[in-house]
Amino acid sequence: MSMSLDGFVTGPDQGPGNGLGDGGEVLHEWFFEAGGRPRETAGSPGSVNGRIVDEAMSTRAVITGRGTFEAANGWGGDHHDGVPIYVLSRSPAPAWAAQWPAVHYVSDVAAAARDAKHAAGDRNVLVHGASVLVRRALTAGVLDELEIHLIPVLLGDGRRLFESLGIEPSRLERIRVLEGEGGVTHVRYRAPGRRQGNS
Amino acid sequence: MSMSLDGFVTGPDQGPGNGLGDGGEVLHEWFFEAGGRPRETAGSPGSVNGRIVDEAMSTRAVITGRGTFEAANGWGGDHHDGVPIYVLSRSPAPAWAAQWPAVHYVSDVAAAARDAKHAAGDRNVLVHGASVLVRRALTAGVLDELEIHLIPVLLGDGRRLFESLGIEPSRLERIRVLEGEGGVTHVRYRAPGRRQGNS
Repeated sequence: MSMSLDGFVTGPDQGPGNGLGDGGEVLHEWFFEAGGRPRETAGSPGSVNGRIVDEAMSTRAVITGRGTFEAANGWGGDHHDGVPIYVLSRSPAPAWAAQWPAVHYVSDVAAAARDAKHAAGDRNVLVHGASVLVRRALTAGVLDELEIHLIPVLLGDGRRLFESLGIEPSRLERIRVLEGEGGVTHVRYRAPGRRQGNS
Repeated sequence: MSMSLDGFVTGPDQGPGNGLGDGGEVLHEWFFEAGGRPRETAGSPGSVNGRIVDEAMSTRAVITGRGTFEAANGWGGDHHDGVPIYVLSRSPAPAWAAQWPAVHYVSDVAAAARDAKHAAGDRNVLVHGASVLVRRALTAGVLDELEIHLIPVLLGDGRRLFESLGIEPSRLERIRVLEGEGGVTHVRYRAPGRRQGNS
């Protein structure tokens, strides 16, 4: 998850037509730049940010929230390499999404995690997007690791990654710190309360 | 400032008699351990956390909020090495604090910064404590640098370092990342909107 230093995953005044909020696009520049999209500032092949993008793109299943999925038009049914996409939703898939074989609407976060991990085999699962999904996965204890991409910006307001979680205070184990380009700091933790032997 | 990964400077249920909130003491363990207080887990002399403590203790003036100052009983009038202490407060100093020559109650954050920087000469000023002070110093543009000690814990609730700041989104320049012991990540930024030539 890309998060501003003050804890936001969008800028202020986020809403329809302004999905990232005012100034929120700064949270994701590093990813798109390093992903080789046509930007003048694209990261070099050996960049730290590029390595993080490569890791995300080498996952073999994706779990995402319905809001993120539908706002992205379901990535045309293919997030990357045709890996299965599990969309957490209380409603069944709409017709336009149900046509894609890789897309599965699932109502329970534990079931989504189980299916995605099974599909990914010995590779990782990417949990993509919505802060609500991160909260649900965290509180359900199905998250193995949590990587924060700490963006050097104060957004002042917006949607928070960590709203009041309703969990007991829990320590995490830091696994890795990488100094990305553009002042982005990637910090990876082992998530608290993860279920042993299930990663 | 020590901040939990989810953005808190205290745990939940913070209040009189529970100043750090439930579980909030975990935010400051690294400092006291590295500072050589009598703890079994005290950091070694060459520790990263110890270096950060040394930097804090080599500052030559302190600015603090009234709440932090008075909750600490004014550190007995001496935070470290007798350096001047500027207490941001709308009220004048109470008698017990006014007796200390190093302690100055100041109502304006810009005036506090000016006096503290003058007193510190070519050394740094420590801005100690309260999140409200950080917000006031940030929004007043008198903060030169901002160092976050990112603690590997999710507190779930508490008092936030960055409440809605009421500022325009502003980028920061990352100056330094240090991997401290115990999973603490020290990230230093140049603060936005700082006044040039005034550090």
